[in-house]
Amino acid sequence: MYPALQLLARSPRLVRAPASASVPGLSGSAVPPSWPPNAARMASQNSFRIEYDTFGELKVPNDKYYGAQTVRSTMNFKIGGVTKRMPIPVIKAFGILKRAAAEVSQNYGLDPKIADAIMRAADEVAEGKLNDHFPLLVWQTGSGTQTNMNVNEVISNRAIEMLGGELGSKKAVHPNDRVNKSQSSNDTFPTAMHIAAAVEVHEVLLPGLQKLHDAPNAKSKEFAQIIKIGRTHTQDAVPLTLEQEFSGYVQQVSYAMARIKAAMPRIYELAAGGTAVGTGLHTRVGFAEKVAAKVAALTGFLFVTVPNKFEALAAHDALVELSGAMNTTACSLMKIANNIRFLGSGPRSGLGELIFPENEPGNSIMPGKCEAMTMVAAQVMGNHVAIIVGGSNGHFELNIFKPMMIKNVLHSARLLGDASVSFTENCVVGIEANRERINKLMNESLMLVTALNPHIGYDKAAKIAKTAHKNGSTLKGTSIELGYLTAEQFDE
Amino acid sequence: MYPALQLLARSPRLVRAPASASVPGLSGSAVPPSWPPNAARMASQNSFRIEYDTFGELKVPNDKYYGAQTVRSTMNFKIGGVTKRMPIPVIKAFGILKRAAAEVSQNYGLDPKIADAIMRAADEVAEGKLNDHFPLLVWQTGSGTQTNMNVNEVISNRAIEMLGGELGSKKAVHPNDRVNKSQSSNDTFPTAMHIAAAVEVHEVLLPGLQKLHDAPNAKSKEFAQIIKIGRTHTQDAVPLTLEQEFSGYVQQVSYAMARIKAAMPRIYELAAGGTAVGTGLHTRVGFAEKVAAKVAALTGFLFVTVPNKFEALAAHDALVELSGAMNTTACSLMKIANNIRFLGSGPRSGLGELIFPENEPGNSIMPGKCEAMTMVAAQVMGNHVAIIVGGSNGHFELNIFKPMMIKNVLHSARLLGDASVSFTENCVVGIEANRERINKLMNESLMLVTALNPHIGYDKAAKIAKTAHKNGSTLKGTSIELGYLTAEQFDE
Amino acid sequence: MYPALQLLARSPRLVRAPASASVPGLSGSAVPPSWPPNAARMASQNSFRIEYDTFGELKVPNDKYYGAQTVRSTMNFKIGGVTKRMPIPVIKAFGILKRAAAEVSQNYGLDPKIADAIMRAADEVAEGKLNDHFPLLVWQTGSGTQTNMNVNEVISNRAIEMLGGELGSKKAVHPNDRVNKSQSSNDTFPTAMHIAAAVEVHEVLLPGLQKLHDAPNAKSKEFAQIIKIGRTHTQDAVPLTLEQEFSGYVQQVSYAMARIKAAMPRIYELAAGGTAVGTGLHTRVGFAEKVAAKVAALTGFLFVTVPNKFEALAAHDALVELSGAMNTTACSLMKIANNIRFLGSGPRSGLGELIFPENEPGNSIMPGKCEAMTMVAAQVMGNHVAIIVGGSNGHFELNIFKPMMIKNVLHSARLLGDASVSFTENCVVGIEANRERINKLMNESLMLVTALNPHIGYDKAAKIAKTAHKNGSTLKGTSIELGYLTAEQFDE
Amino acid sequence: MYPALQLLARSPRLVRAPASASVPGLSGSAVPPSWPPNAARMASQNSFRIEYDTFGELKVPNDKYYGAQTVRSTMNFKIGGVTKRMPIPVIKAFGILKRAAAEVSQNYGLDPKIADAIMRAADEVAEGKLNDHFPLLVWQTGSGTQTNMNVNEVISNRAIEMLGGELGSKKAVHPNDRVNKSQSSNDTFPTAMHIAAAVEVHEVLLPGLQKLHDAPNAKSKEFAQIIKIGRTHTQDAVPLTLEQEFSGYVQQVSYAMARIKAAMPRIYELAAGGTAVGTGLHTRVGFAEKVAAKVAALTGFLFVTVPNKFEALAAHDALVELSGAMNTTACSLMKIANNIRFLGSGPRSGLGELIFPENEPGNSIMPGKCEAMTMVAAQVMGNHVAIIVGGSNGHFELNIFKPMMIKNVLHSARLLGDASVSFTENCVVGIEANRERINKLMNESLMLVTALNPHIGYDKAAKIAKTAHKNGSTLKGTSIELGYLTAEQFDE
Repeated sequence: MYPALQLLARSPRLVRAPASASVPGLSGSAVPPSWPPNAARMASQNSFRIEYDTFGELKVPNDKYYGAQTVRSTMNFKIGGVTKRMPIPVIKAFGILKRAAAEVSQNYGLDPKIADAIMRAADEVAEGKLNDHFPLLVWQTGSGTQTNMNVNEVISNRAIEMLGGELGSKKAVHPNDRVNKSQSSNDTFPTAMHIAAAVEVHEVLLPGLQKLHDAPNAKSKEFAQIIKIGRTHTQDAVPLTLEQEFSGYVQQVSYAMARIKAAMPRIYELAAGGTAVGTGLHTRVGFAEKVAAKVAALTGFLFVTVPNKFEALAAHDALVELSGAMNTTACSLMKIANNIRFLGSGPRSGLGELIFPENEPGNSIMPGKCEAMTMVAAQVMGNHVAIIVGGSNGHFELNIFKPMMIKNVLHSARLLGDASVSFTENCVVGIEANRERINKLMNESLMLVTALNPHIGYDKAAKIAKTAHKNGSTLKGTSIELGYLTAEQFDE
Repeated sequence: MYPALQLLARSPRLVRAPASASVPGLSGSAVPPSWPPNAARMASQNSFRIEYDTFGELKVPNDKYYGAQTVRSTMNFKIGGVTKRMPIPVIKAFGILKRAAAEVSQNYGLDPKIADAIMRAADEVAEGKLNDHFPLLVWQTGSGTQTNMNVNEVISNRAIEMLGGELGSKKAVHPNDRVNKSQSSNDTFPTAMHIAAAVEVHEVLLPGLQKLHDAPNAKSKEFAQIIKIGRTHTQDAVPLTLEQEFSGYVQQVSYAMARIKAAMPRIYELAAGGTAVGTGLHTRVGFAEKVAAKVAALTGFLFVTVPNKFEALAAHDALVELSGAMNTTACSLMKIANNIRFLGSGPRSGLGELIFPENEPGNSIMPGKCEAMTMVAAQVMGNHVAIIVGGSNGHFELNIFKPMMIKNVLHSARLLGDASVSFTENCVVGIEANRERINKLMNESLMLVTALNPHIGYDKAAKIAKTAHKNGSTLKGTSIELGYLTAEQFDE
Repeated sequence: MYPALQLLARSPRLVRAPASASVPGLSGSAVPPSWPPNAARMASQNSFRIEYDTFGELKVPNDKYYGAQTVRSTMNFKIGGVTKRMPIPVIKAFGILKRAAAEVSQNYGLDPKIADAIMRAADEVAEGKLNDHFPLLVWQTGSGTQTNMNVNEVISNRAIEMLGGELGSKKAVHPNDRVNKSQSSNDTFPTAMHIAAAVEVHEVLLPGLQKLHDAPNAKSKEFAQIIKIGRTHTQDAVPLTLEQEFSGYVQQVSYAMARIKAAMPRIYELAAGGTAVGTGLHTRVGFAEKVAAKVAALTGFLFVTVPNKFEALAAHDALVELSGAMNTTACSLMKIANNIRFLGSGPRSGLGELIFPENEPGNSIMPGKCEAMTMVAAQVMGNHVAIIVGGSNGHFELNIFKPMMIKNVLHSARLLGDASVSFTENCVVGIEANRERINKLMNESLMLVTALNPHIGYDKAAKIAKTAHKNGSTLKGTSIELGYLTAEQFDE
Repeated sequence: MYPALQLLARSPRLVRAPASASVPGLSGSAVPPSWPPNAARMASQNSFRIEYDTFGELKVPNDKYYGAQTVRSTMNFKIGGVTKRMPIPVIKAFGILKRAAAEVSQNYGLDPKIADAIMRAADEVAEGKLNDHFPLLVWQTGSGTQTNMNVNEVISNRAIEMLGGELGSKKAVHPNDRVNKSQSSNDTFPTAMHIAAAVEVHEVLLPGLQKLHDAPNAKSKEFAQIIKIGRTHTQDAVPLTLEQEFSGYVQQVSYAMARIKAAMPRIYELAAGGTAVGTGLHTRVGFAEKVAAKVAALTGFLFVTVPNKFEALAAHDALVELSGAMNTTACSLMKIANNIRFLGSGPRSGLGELIFPENEPGNSIMPGKCEAMTMVAAQVMGNHVAIIVGGSNGHFELNIFKPMMIKNVLHSARLLGDASVSFTENCVVGIEANRERINKLMNESLMLVTALNPHIGYDKAAKIAKTAHKNGSTLKGTSIELGYLTAEQFDE
């Protein structure tokens, strides 16, 4: 489907590991995570090198590729704890972008040897091999500047190392002048946001929804012959088949995928080349287009350069739009999970029309997978509001809610995708219809009376239903008793 | 653009009257509104007829076409006051639907004379001529059943009157058996919701946004030669032209229209023909398709029958989606209005780059049009959350938040459309650039230093800017003083 | 309860009329509303006087007390239609404030004759007698300046009329220099917001909740002896009494009232006396305190002057807080209405434990009152988000989302109060327990097995339940069959 | 302040470590985290023991105290990745609760030796020593049942180990029958939610806000003599002192703390003793009260047993309320941070009245601390909506959004507390007033004209300001030119 996944194909992320596998340092191995929550503190416990920024000297851990600016940032922002780091998909997206930029910059005079080193280092970032070197949190400067610098420093030092230089020397591969060449935080961070969102949507969200689409679709075929009571206003209504009921869910998920895909064209537009305010100051003609084309080639997605870079830096409407599509999806999934939960309520004092698979103790009395799904849906709605608030508050040439916005977008995509898989595999595929119960409820129902409407008119039909309900009698008996129909007419 | 506006063309609504003109009873005339807030109470003060429902007799005002069920409902739901009536666009949409259904029903055995009377009465509803006969509030049963009955009663009585019958007699044109033939509240209300939303989007929202798109677009041409300081993080940044800045807004509004249009295909899908639970019980093959085609012909919009009617009754994801597009628009407009407000701040202690037109006393010290726009944006975000909560809470075969959802959708569409017009006409078109101020700020700025980056590197450029800032000196002087550049090199 | 309701006691609003009675011009009389949606247009159709503002001459309808500034504003803001006027409770609150200010100003040199005329005119505003003279919309300048001017103009002209002067002459009772004396829109509008919110909370919201508290409380006593199956995870759980179940709702409503009352102290703090930015420029020492005391005396609520007027103008945290309390209430009511709806689901294929009163056709198959309540709850949550967005976006010395914020606060208070009354009267008080059904479900339940836990341990009890569920057998039989208990032990 | 912090005093959490220090396994030591994302997979790589549940055998890692149910759950719920684990404060709160319950259970027949082992094991959980043994995610069953079981298993096995027994044997200290004695997930999880929320509020949120209160309060004293231009509508307004401006922020934070404290009484109410549905089945008289008293003694907070346990299980209004208070706080902090950001905008093309401390490269051109604060505020608003959706959706006897709700509450508390500290320390305390700039703006301002209002009337004052603005002249000159005032009168 995405033919040119040249780069990402080498990334462990593509092998959809268990949901928990992307923890830094734990990805696919027994190696424990070792990234320091506060780099300066860690450094004092271990060996370190001294680096400088304009405020003085800083200790940088020797086993880390990042540099002074990253360390300084860990000292300035301590909000929310380590689980609030910049999401790994953003870091990987930066790897892709930095690699593309270096490759393109060769056309504009960047020494091929340096470019090559940057590209190889950036590839390692894109593949998730250097995850431990990105300690910064979401809660930093609102442009994501510190993370851009973190990436520049890591690639700079890793490239320097590859070229046999000294970490922290900035020689040959200066983090700002070389790695960040023709770039600014203001255009790289939005670019990385869009790449990360596109990857997460295509690798986690859409495949998850596809599963959730296919499973009830298969179920609905299974349920084709089962006629059951319908319920409107939570009350007994006219019958439908269980297949028809499930076909509604299938339609909802089908539209959910369509909605998300419809939002993607604007996600595919990349800000790279806009530099600080969108004018492209310091970039050369063609740089923006070539970088976007390179990112497209590396990822297999239809990335292009954004037509208006002022909009792309100052606003993030495209992410608000994508979040809106995910939020609509959350509404759909809340509805579906609620329906299934209620239809499976029981075992004896509920509706009892569906039987859940048992795969956990207590499972039969707890539709936990439905509940996880509805909790996820609520969270996505909340994330959406955070994104709205951030998206509406850009000022002048720059929106400065970027890290918060992309964190929530990625969170929603991951939660919806994972929850769809979990809900499908552990609940939907194993659902069975309780045919006995369904039949019993059908037969007891008064709602068949509506079938009489076209024959005897609404007013009489209503009276029959009401009388039968009051007397606890059957429709047939009541119809005859009231003199509206003979037994023969009724059976017809 | 919409060639077949046969029906609506006769409606006073199409002539975009002043925003306030759609008040019932005031539309285009001096006739005061006379609809009764509580029909029963009013009736007791005036002349009335007696009608019956299953709970007993009810007094219906003689000058009203509605009947017993409507009166009963006014007695049961008294929530929020008269400004909370079912929005008129919903009532008009019902008129369109009922007319289409009657026309189609002729193919299935409805007496042409009766059908004709229904059609003529429904036309009057669609044209807004009978607005005073719809006293019910938004806060009723969640399926909108009472409003469907209200429409049935009004059309029934008006048709009976046309045919020379007696109001309230239900003779010849029974509200349920005839006017509601092949229909159910459960499929008519969602159909009316979609028709109303489509009309409001096309008549109010999109034209308003188009204005807001065109005006800054024209402005931006005017501003092509004006170079100004850029601002990121609310701080001085590198320069751009005022045209470029405005082009970002134009792009945002352009995308806003694209987003809204992208949501419309699912709005064009009509539930009519699904009846009570989506099975189409009591309808004939082809009814659904024909009604949708007829509504399309009447309105000129691309309405079709919805492929899955179970989804269309049980969920309103299409409205959540449309609200999401309007919410993204609200974020865009909040951003634009904030920008313009801040750029026009002053007159002496603000940024002062824009000059607002003066069209109201105190105007020069109050960017009231920006403020109205940002208040509207906030309201639309709130409406969106109400729609989300309603949209996620459907149960079984029926979502029962319908009146609340459509009320908020229509509210958002109207507010955004009207505010766009007001903002454009009373603010944007009259904005002037304060060229003197813009030049002054440009010349004083330190940010030109970034132009030196590619020549002397990031570290030196940063040091120049910092030193100049501390000493209050110029970039040139500082560059020379620090020995980084000669005067000649700097000028270059 | 509020002993000093001197002024409001004369207001028709205090007599809790039917929810719809506060329509302008219809309040308590047969006089039709006659306020013009666009004052200038109306004036050209009728007789008018010419007034001037700094932009030129304007036609003001002769039968209206407002003046040039109000007319100008109707021409500048046409957003949302006439149902979006500034809420009447805000207008009435302004009447109270203006009266209090005039009374206090006598101490500071205002001519008693003029003060008296202002007070009498302001009383008429407070009593709702002049509602037709306030045509302005919510969507105006964000400080509410136009509405303050509207009030000043109306009181000025009405007072001039009382003194035998000429409308529009501004003689003797100048709208700015006299009626607005020692005031600014920036402090009067926040003051009116707080007065209006306090009145609506005390007259509509809290009495409504009290009803909703008392009715289920009475119900719960009725239900004391009814043992029923509990449900957790929507599944059968251990039993409780129906009284206990209802006692949970009573507790929720009880806390809801406590939460709202806890928010009121900060609502009772009035900004009056702060004038333009909070410094109280142009006011005299003691004015703020005296005005607050006078408003307290007029309304009977515990108003005081706000300790920090800078906060009171620049932020509206107190309204965000109150909205938060109403939002929590909405969550409670959503929960309660959902519960009752599901417990009353049926009549044959649902839970069927509760029987709803029948007071509307179709009622037995539509728990419409629950649905109206849940729609209201969703709306209040949406209103809350609009208030949050507005409340968080104040800039410098003034929040400029004032009209939007108070509109939503009043909307929420009114909806919750009215819906509580409607839900109580038309649903809760008439609910009956379906004892037969409740007993049947109890006896069939497997969940009594948990009673065995302390006797035979969790593992064995779980096995019994599971086996019985699989075999469709009883607990007793299964316990014996599995050899865990003898029949005697079980019965014990 | 909280005198009886007997237990928590031994917890490393009380020593407010750097924000990142609470990572599992890193807390205060160099030991790397070793908890397995998928326990079953890990176990297969290492040594393990075999345990059983009703579905068969399971491999449990030998170095873990949890058991079969926990392992089963890791296989069923894989949503969101390891950063989405149940928050540590919930785990610690469970430790406190389980210890209290064991202590109390001695009064009701629990063997003191067993109770003692449970208490000691629970203490270790409360102290955070066993954090690595809680691998489960937030996204599980909505009652938090799996986490309760996880806690039971860990304490059971740790207690068994202390008593010299065999892990997994369940002998002597059965996880359900002993550790969970007199408890149910349905009452323990809500209890742990309230304990965790109370601890986080008192240890992180309120101390953070107190700092943010004190710093601007101190600033405001510093700024007492600085008169500056006020700004309303973002436009020049009448002057105030910088102290007065900051006093508004101080007031907002002061009220924020008051609002949060006002929500705590309902947080102090504990559900323990309610067991499965609130009836307290299987508990003894006095158990609930004694457990609450014991928790109060252990923590030093005013915990009591909740008066109505049905409400406490079925709804979480208390958390919605607390979230509402935090949301109001977020609005306040958004406002404050925005104000400071804009007042510090510049250095040359902004308002430039405040000077930020420089503590990071690029700092002078990026108010990153303000931005982190506004991003946090947006996140808290989003979290609030997630909590609202969850809080409103409880069904019957149990709200099943518990883990999602408490996760968001704790997230908001932590973010607001941490961000307040970061913002205070890295921004507020170092802010300086740019007196030169402030004076310059004051002198240039036209707004002093309002000082003329009481002397020459509003109309004339307005004309002076307008003319001066148009001509770019001074107020004094214009006043004289227009003949309204002499030079002497003006100076007065």
